[in-house]
Amino acid sequence: MTITRHDVRSFLSMAVVRGDTAYLSGHIARNGDTVAEQTEDILEQIDEVLASVGTDKSKLLTVNIWLTDVSTFHEMNEVYTAWIAPHEPPARATVEAKLALPNLLVEIMATAAIE
Amino acid sequence: MTITRHDVRSFLSMAVVRGDTAYLSGHIARNGDTVAEQTEDILEQIDEVLASVGTDKSKLLTVNIWLTDVSTFHEMNEVYTAWIAPHEPPARATVEAKLALPNLLVEIMATAAIE
Amino acid sequence: MTITRHDVRSFLSMAVVRGDTAYLSGHIARNGDTVAEQTEDILEQIDEVLASVGTDKSKLLTVNIWLTDVSTFHEMNEVYTAWIAPHEPPARATVEAKLALPNLLVEIMATAAIE
Repeated sequence: MTITRHDVRSFLSMAVVRGDTAYLSGHIARNGDTVAEQTEDILEQIDEVLASVGTDKSKLLTVNIWLTDVSTFHEMNEVYTAWIAPHEPPARATVEAKLALPNLLVEIMATAAIE
Repeated sequence: MTITRHDVRSFLSMAVVRGDTAYLSGHIARNGDTVAEQTEDILEQIDEVLASVGTDKSKLLTVNIWLTDVSTFHEMNEVYTAWIAPHEPPARATVEAKLALPNLLVEIMATAAIE
Repeated sequence: MTITRHDVRSFLSMAVVRGDTAYLSGHIARNGDTVAEQTEDILEQIDEVLASVGTDKSKLLTVNIWLTDVSTFHEMNEVYTAWIAPHEPPARATVEAKLALPNLLVEIMATAAIE
């Protein structure tokens, strides 16, 4: 089965598609100073990536969220819950972890069905 | 391919089934004060979820475990090893991470084949 | 669909194969005192496991990397980037996490397509 890679960087692809499944890299914010702002920016990027591989958030299978400070769970989750397709949320886990750059407050990795 | 969601909460589904694969959310304990007790409670929940989607622990593909204190690895692992189907353990990774609520000591996310 | 397990330990399989997908356990270094050395050793193990299930690093779908100190990101990433198949990198996420043993500096979990 063919593997297609989207937005290939030197050491990762922002998305890998194989058959009818898309695997997204951990997404981080391009801008935003708060957890809410960074979450919004990341979810906007995820919408774009999902669209570029021919799917959308209603077909998400799994989401992994890392917060640099897990006490910001509710701030992240308010933005996430407003965004997620009602009645169609994926399986999810959210834990605390320090991220690659000190200004990053949240990172989100996902897999999605394409059809 | 149809996606079926089980035990849908406001922002996640406890399990998502697509084709012959089940994706489980990160499961946390409903009760238990120790890592051993919480692990037991989580594995009981996972048994229930797997049964509700028509599979069981002998068909687990991957398991991710987060411990708030990785020095409790052996305490968690003793309960896990007694539970796991002998000769049929899934791929697994266990790392330390602070979880969403301060009383949580362990969280487990899994994927399983259905047939 | 049959599940095949490779290098089965008491509580995990180093790899689980189902259909045309391989799920690898979190791999840790057998030796090495630095992040670069441990990363090299882990990637060598992953090459071996992938070969044993009939695939190779050009068919990796996802990679999750945990570093005990995320400030070693570049040291890990230099080894990783030299190793990864050019133009064919998988989706990836790298976060900080304490690992099961104090001498471990990096752990890598992966999934790969087999054909």
